[in-house]
Amino acid sequence: MHIAVHQGPSGSDAIGTVATTVTRAADSGAELVVFPEMFTTGYHIGADILTLAEPTDGTTARAVARLATEHRVAIAYGYPERDGDAVFNAVQLIGPDGARLANYRKTHLYGDLDRTRFTPGERVVVQAEVHGLLVGLLICYDVEFPEAVRAHALAGTDLLLVPTALMSPYETVADTLVPARAYESQLYLAYANHTGQEGTLRYCGRSCVVAPTGQVLARGGHDDDLLLADIDPALLRASRAENTHLADRRPELYTALATHEGAAA
Amino acid sequence: MHIAVHQGPSGSDAIGTVATTVTRAADSGAELVVFPEMFTTGYHIGADILTLAEPTDGTTARAVARLATEHRVAIAYGYPERDGDAVFNAVQLIGPDGARLANYRKTHLYGDLDRTRFTPGERVVVQAEVHGLLVGLLICYDVEFPEAVRAHALAGTDLLLVPTALMSPYETVADTLVPARAYESQLYLAYANHTGQEGTLRYCGRSCVVAPTGQVLARGGHDDDLLLADIDPALLRASRAENTHLADRRPELYTALATHEGAAA
Repeated sequence: MHIAVHQGPSGSDAIGTVATTVTRAADSGAELVVFPEMFTTGYHIGADILTLAEPTDGTTARAVARLATEHRVAIAYGYPERDGDAVFNAVQLIGPDGARLANYRKTHLYGDLDRTRFTPGERVVVQAEVHGLLVGLLICYDVEFPEAVRAHALAGTDLLLVPTALMSPYETVADTLVPARAYESQLYLAYANHTGQEGTLRYCGRSCVVAPTGQVLARGGHDDDLLLADIDPALLRASRAENTHLADRRPELYTALATHEGAAA
Repeated sequence: MHIAVHQGPSGSDAIGTVATTVTRAADSGAELVVFPEMFTTGYHIGADILTLAEPTDGTTARAVARLATEHRVAIAYGYPERDGDAVFNAVQLIGPDGARLANYRKTHLYGDLDRTRFTPGERVVVQAEVHGLLVGLLICYDVEFPEAVRAHALAGTDLLLVPTALMSPYETVADTLVPARAYESQLYLAYANHTGQEGTLRYCGRSCVVAPTGQVLARGGHDDDLLLADIDPALLRASRAENTHLADRRPELYTALATHEGAAA
């Protein structure tokens, strides 16, 4: 499966940018396009994010679904989700037929930026099948927790999509942690970031697509970009056969990970 | 605490190399010296490793203890441990007074190289205090499992020592996974590798000391080296205060990690 990762700011016409990008990605052969965290509204926009929040089948979702149908591509995008009184930091995956395939709510909220606005999600593994691959969803800070990616690997995720809003000086997350995740948990990982300044935040780009071998297949710089990469099920099988980390785990030794509530003493 | 990491082959006189290295490290101000996996005998030496195996208080341990006492440095070294009929891939930590502080048996055995010789250990967290820091022990393949390092972080390990025998073409483990571990679990990590050819294996060096910020404080190349680095408790505290991954975990979402026995479906 050919995928595209959009790296750039939300800007004043995010849906227009989605339309332009999806057209360009589809022309390049992409069958799935990933946009950054909270792309449809912007991330660091204060309390506006609460009034802009929409249900999973809201106006924005329908506009994205029309673009998916028109170009026959799957689209994953970050947005603020409203569900009654609660607002979630969410990412939705729309299929190439416009169907809403999966909706994930960020489980690991990041500092005051997230906690003052959002309710945390309660399911770490949300998946859907796209072109025969099991696609999983996480958001930004989630991927810094190896447990979250491991849970996906154990549930069979082949390709993990991670919309993000990573700022400087945390480039080490994009450059080091994200490739480590793909290798240690033997899955493909696509990480889609913002660029430029938004309020007090300066996003660092550095979006990437990483193979389960740890090889970085595509890498953005600090400027806007459209990354293209091929997700190869045969390579995934071969890598898992050689790198047997999932089978070599010792789960009986990991009980503290699922029970320990706090930080180190 | 000043530490030193010895990168090099076991050679024909490993204890002689330990003596020379500890002298040089102590002269440089080191208070703890780390040697690679199975350093006292060599790693890829076939069934000889079984006949060379010794108990925790064997001849080799006593020789290392004398060097520790003489130079007033702690020493961690990999060796084959015999306990009755069982042989373990082990690392022992000797204190600056010659006391045997901790002995760890590799829990994640690597392929046929390990499995044909060794019994797996059953405790993932083994620690001892050295100069006020809680020092933990893992070996080689163990560190590729984020669960093992996380278990140490949750148990309060400040400095994780990882003797290894990493071969080409797995440089990504040393270059990417090891720095990711230090950052994601907020601890110092010292990774000590062999160099050169041993039987059919070509070791890749790339030993390192990484800070909890993810910064690589010292890095070996492919040749023999003695790395020196400073372990700073104040930096550790500051990094943990800023990077709150341990407190931000969602253990109630990680139950699959402690119960799931096999690979992905």
